[in-house]
Amino acid sequence: MKIAALAGGVGGAKLIHGLAKLLPPDELSVIVNTGDDFEYLGLNISPDLDTVCYTLAELANPVTGWGRKDECWTIYQEIAALDGPKWFHIGDKDLATHILRTYKLNQGLTLSEITAEFCRCWGVKHPVFPMSDQSVRTVVHTAEGEALGFQEYFVHQACEPVVEHFEFVGIEDARPLPQAINAIEACDVVVISPSNPWVSIDPILKIPGYVESIREKPLVAVSPLIGGKALKGPAAKIYAELGVTPSAWAVASHYKDILTGFIFDEQDHHELEKIERWRIIALVTDILMKNDQDRFRLAEEVLRFCETILNRSR
Amino acid sequence: MKIAALAGGVGGAKLIHGLAKLLPPDELSVIVNTGDDFEYLGLNISPDLDTVCYTLAELANPVTGWGRKDECWTIYQEIAALDGPKWFHIGDKDLATHILRTYKLNQGLTLSEITAEFCRCWGVKHPVFPMSDQSVRTVVHTAEGEALGFQEYFVHQACEPVVEHFEFVGIEDARPLPQAINAIEACDVVVISPSNPWVSIDPILKIPGYVESIREKPLVAVSPLIGGKALKGPAAKIYAELGVTPSAWAVASHYKDILTGFIFDEQDHHELEKIERWRIIALVTDILMKNDQDRFRLAEEVLRFCETILNRSR
Repeated sequence: MKIAALAGGVGGAKLIHGLAKLLPPDELSVIVNTGDDFEYLGLNISPDLDTVCYTLAELANPVTGWGRKDECWTIYQEIAALDGPKWFHIGDKDLATHILRTYKLNQGLTLSEITAEFCRCWGVKHPVFPMSDQSVRTVVHTAEGEALGFQEYFVHQACEPVVEHFEFVGIEDARPLPQAINAIEACDVVVISPSNPWVSIDPILKIPGYVESIREKPLVAVSPLIGGKALKGPAAKIYAELGVTPSAWAVASHYKDILTGFIFDEQDHHELEKIERWRIIALVTDILMKNDQDRFRLAEEVLRFCETILNRSR
Repeated sequence: MKIAALAGGVGGAKLIHGLAKLLPPDELSVIVNTGDDFEYLGLNISPDLDTVCYTLAELANPVTGWGRKDECWTIYQEIAALDGPKWFHIGDKDLATHILRTYKLNQGLTLSEITAEFCRCWGVKHPVFPMSDQSVRTVVHTAEGEALGFQEYFVHQACEPVVEHFEFVGIEDARPLPQAINAIEACDVVVISPSNPWVSIDPILKIPGYVESIREKPLVAVSPLIGGKALKGPAAKIYAELGVTPSAWAVASHYKDILTGFIFDEQDHHELEKIERWRIIALVTDILMKNDQDRFRLAEEVLRFCETILNRSR
């Protein structure tokens, strides 16, 4: 069974890691949000892409979920000693990725070419695609009228400003990565990882072309919320600020026009009936991923659920 | 007594370090070659400027003379693991300087502004000036007809190609740093540190404006050669390839139109008469700087010699 998975950062990467243990490289492709990409210290940083790659390469920091394990902080300290910017913590190993990526982008290589090259070096066998080789930048418009770059909002301001709406700058001119579209066309099921629908998955879905391809396939999403809360990140806070009570139902509602199956947590079992009313096939299970075992168990359940959906649609 | 000193990399930095121990910040200014500057991994690197600053800040690697002490090599290793460029060894601490410099240059700050800011953070009290805020790039034209950037020649090709001549690209349009000219105008003696005349001092002297200012002052140079050999770097090899037997005399000859006093090693005592024939005042002493004590001793001798020269010209 071939899966094309859409992913954002830490939560999404965990499920992808589980799926990659169960599926060979020709049966799992990953399409990653790059709306969070930004420049820091003049370096091009792709936080979600790196989180997915580091996780698949088993180089990720197991505590934070992002960044590198066994990391060093020399550069961060030296730049702080020189009164340089310090709101974004980048470890030395992680920084090497950004330096070389920036160098190669400036040489004219595309983000997808660079990602493929890095994956080869890190031993990542499953194809990992940035959603686009064109720049899309998530901008957070706040209740106070500010327009913040996503990392400025997420890291520098610790998600404190109240969100009014999101803007994906450049999205009209961005094109889906052709290899990503091929992966969707060749797959049996598209899986949306447990990532923030607003800022991790929407940037992918809103690039002209993706939804048209995804509609042709069964689509299974895994909720990033449990009991109305996000395990990490501001998804629940954003829902509330946008006037929607954060819940599994709200996530399903977000995707409902294209959703075939939806996987959410036992804690949210009471929402089952409301979700099934939309003819969405539901799986209620333990979706919390605390450790590697949880990732593999959930990935197995996701694949089994995808099989069920495929059999139903046959 | 006020000194304005011209310097290149390691050898020059050692003498500057000695002079800085003896003179307060308002009596010693340092004007540093930037012809060796180059881009590596998209980062702006100023090898001589960094060597002088690190040495004055007592952050320099005492073994190599360049780079930082207690250095780490994480980034170098990670970039090598990603099949990135690896011919130029940059440690992590050193790299932080280059990242922040590049970032600030791209923000529109000048190299001299950035250098002043870094010096403040590193606790370097003596003014250190890049020779110019405009780019001058030393290019090595080789006997095989190649044109190599200086670091490409010096580091990547380990000075192996035979030198035909040097070119300082951009030098016609470069302007001396105004603060450096002020320092020369305010000084009692200009000192040329024991740096490579061809590639460390010539780029400074050939920027239109420097020689005109320097001519107004007594000029003392310290030979970078002992017994016809350079302690470090290709100075002797370059002399030979340009058809000049490397010697103290050859160095004095290089500067003879502007030279008042010349300090060279006891080993080269036999050249004294030949040098004095040009009415250059000579000091023959032990110029080898193996350790900090040597730097301070030589710096004391340089200052005493400058006093002598000043008294003679009064």
